[in-house]
Amino acid sequence: MPLQPWMKLLSTDDHLIEPPRLWTDRLPAKYRDLGPRIVEQARGEGQAPAEVWNYEGRIYPYIGLNAVAGKSPEEFGLEPTRYDEMIPGCYDPKARLRDMDLDGVWGALCFPSFPRFAGTVFLDGQDRRLALLCVQAWNDFVIDEWCATAPGRLIPLVILPLWDVDACAAEIRRTAAKGAKAISFPENPVPLGLPSFHTDHWDPVFTAAEETDMPLCLHFGTSGAAPKTAPEAPFAVTITLFATNSMYAAADLLFSPVLHNHPRLKIGLSEGGIGWIPYLLERADGTWERHRFYQNVNQTVRPSELFHQHFHGCFIDDRFGVEVRHHIGVDKITWECDYPHSDSYWPKSRAYAAEVLADVPDDEVHKIVELNTRRLYNLPA
Amino acid sequence: MPLQPWMKLLSTDDHLIEPPRLWTDRLPAKYRDLGPRIVEQARGEGQAPAEVWNYEGRIYPYIGLNAVAGKSPEEFGLEPTRYDEMIPGCYDPKARLRDMDLDGVWGALCFPSFPRFAGTVFLDGQDRRLALLCVQAWNDFVIDEWCATAPGRLIPLVILPLWDVDACAAEIRRTAAKGAKAISFPENPVPLGLPSFHTDHWDPVFTAAEETDMPLCLHFGTSGAAPKTAPEAPFAVTITLFATNSMYAAADLLFSPVLHNHPRLKIGLSEGGIGWIPYLLERADGTWERHRFYQNVNQTVRPSELFHQHFHGCFIDDRFGVEVRHHIGVDKITWECDYPHSDSYWPKSRAYAAEVLADVPDDEVHKIVELNTRRLYNLPA
Repeated sequence: MPLQPWMKLLSTDDHLIEPPRLWTDRLPAKYRDLGPRIVEQARGEGQAPAEVWNYEGRIYPYIGLNAVAGKSPEEFGLEPTRYDEMIPGCYDPKARLRDMDLDGVWGALCFPSFPRFAGTVFLDGQDRRLALLCVQAWNDFVIDEWCATAPGRLIPLVILPLWDVDACAAEIRRTAAKGAKAISFPENPVPLGLPSFHTDHWDPVFTAAEETDMPLCLHFGTSGAAPKTAPEAPFAVTITLFATNSMYAAADLLFSPVLHNHPRLKIGLSEGGIGWIPYLLERADGTWERHRFYQNVNQTVRPSELFHQHFHGCFIDDRFGVEVRHHIGVDKITWECDYPHSDSYWPKSRAYAAEVLADVPDDEVHKIVELNTRRLYNLPA
Repeated sequence: MPLQPWMKLLSTDDHLIEPPRLWTDRLPAKYRDLGPRIVEQARGEGQAPAEVWNYEGRIYPYIGLNAVAGKSPEEFGLEPTRYDEMIPGCYDPKARLRDMDLDGVWGALCFPSFPRFAGTVFLDGQDRRLALLCVQAWNDFVIDEWCATAPGRLIPLVILPLWDVDACAAEIRRTAAKGAKAISFPENPVPLGLPSFHTDHWDPVFTAAEETDMPLCLHFGTSGAAPKTAPEAPFAVTITLFATNSMYAAADLLFSPVLHNHPRLKIGLSEGGIGWIPYLLERADGTWERHRFYQNVNQTVRPSELFHQHFHGCFIDDRFGVEVRHHIGVDKITWECDYPHSDSYWPKSRAYAAEVLADVPDDEVHKIVELNTRRLYNLPA
């Protein structure tokens, strides 16, 4: 088997469910009732009340959206609505490590849940000072508590106060100094009401990311715009098309000034899959060759060259993507587990990875499951 | 060279520019001033007036959007605004045949321009009776005049009166009886304000398409929703992402009842490229395997199986797609020229096709450039 027992599986895309007291334990006393806290909500007779987040009086109903690890596909439609409907590995780092051991996974980078994958829930905040404290509390939790449980195995990714670009840059530097390894950033800021990648608005963020050598991880869906074809289309259509969001993000950045102005910026396309990358790069190069002359795009560097300098992707079981890996670049591919979401194979992730990688030479497998992630996220062996 | 001189190149996606008198020559006298006609519009001093379409008093400025054949990429940004700024092959079928001969192309299926690729401009019509006559006039022009110039080489594709599903079915049967070979249909009706593929609304159209054995050709962009990331993003982003519209259309149909209820329906993904197909099918199958149980989707047929039964794609110079053709199905791939648009290699289309197909066995090349199209569009050799 090319996936050797001594290779450590590092996942660049997992998810954690925030424990109930994450914010109440960390916010100043005057904010404890306004910051996110778990409250009960009555349901039908004979049913235990649901547990929901209350943030500034607004109710956010899904504490564990898609946190289905341990359920069979036949049960996937029912979202957990109470902590006791999830397995503890969702919200307890010690239990998470046991689940990772069971799964044959060494390391994991975890995205937020209630704050949404790029922390965009805090854009809803009426009190911006509170919102900033909430972002910092999540980051402190991840670094000081979640990842401190097993340094080197749980890899800290942080979120940003997206309404204030200077505060974003400051938060990148603050968290880098205490061990953060990656930044979650929206795949496209525009649907969130924020300036696009074609403005200079985000330059302080990109500069701070370069200086601290942390990748910007663009998880699909973080723009808030999910692929949707029709009001009555089944959700399977959206699930099938999620990667088109990552395609949008890649094309958007490749034809923007961002990568030309920030030569050391690293971009991760989190949960975006990889099998579509060769098509998109060929199409982007063809577009650039024929259509650059009359457009405000860089006239000297081909998009595929930019992609290879700046981007990396990840996959769970993208067999086609693995087969055409040399069209993508073996150095640009990382592996992900997606625990505890429905795309994950937990507790058989390692077995599935071995199967998907069965025809790949050992040295390439080692790069994909471990070495690329160590290099891109600065994780010493 | 695998592309042998005796193989006839058939293009499943070209475009024609409507000659100025297409509608005025065909509409009843009382409608001649309301139906589409060319009028002049003054421009800056020293410039010849622009020629624009006037339909019911509304002005449609681009007579030849992207009709750039014969120009170099450096000139692509300037849209032709007068007939004398286009080469005659755009609007004159005899000149088109000469241009095809020059290009080494034997046959071509042409989409409309002013009516938009699926005739959706006639949804703007205030007078529905006039709009129906306009649709019929375009179809009569294509069959009786454009394609009659060279039967077997110019292949008639027709448009539909999309606001009236029974009139659509009637128009399919009327035009089939006089030689039509394909139907242009929106990739997604929803952005046009029409019912989705997840309703039974379009069943009469699908039944008529099955009975007449004509493919529904879903050209990208026909939903009216172009991929767009940001107000100031260069158009190169949209061009690069066009195929995501075809990905949306494929996923939408694969998880709809349409193909289960219409087992003989054929779907063409016009100008959508092919290199993304293997990724999408693997993702659709994975979604179906894990998420079908709680959703209103067919529980027995895998999406990839449906795709192989019903769909075909086309490419211009999708080298990666050609390389992975066995993941798509060699029988499902057709070639396109895209004359007179900027994606076309005219007058070197045959030379480019030979280059792209250089590593493909002769029999597969013959299928891709000719035999598949003859079979799918019922074109006797």
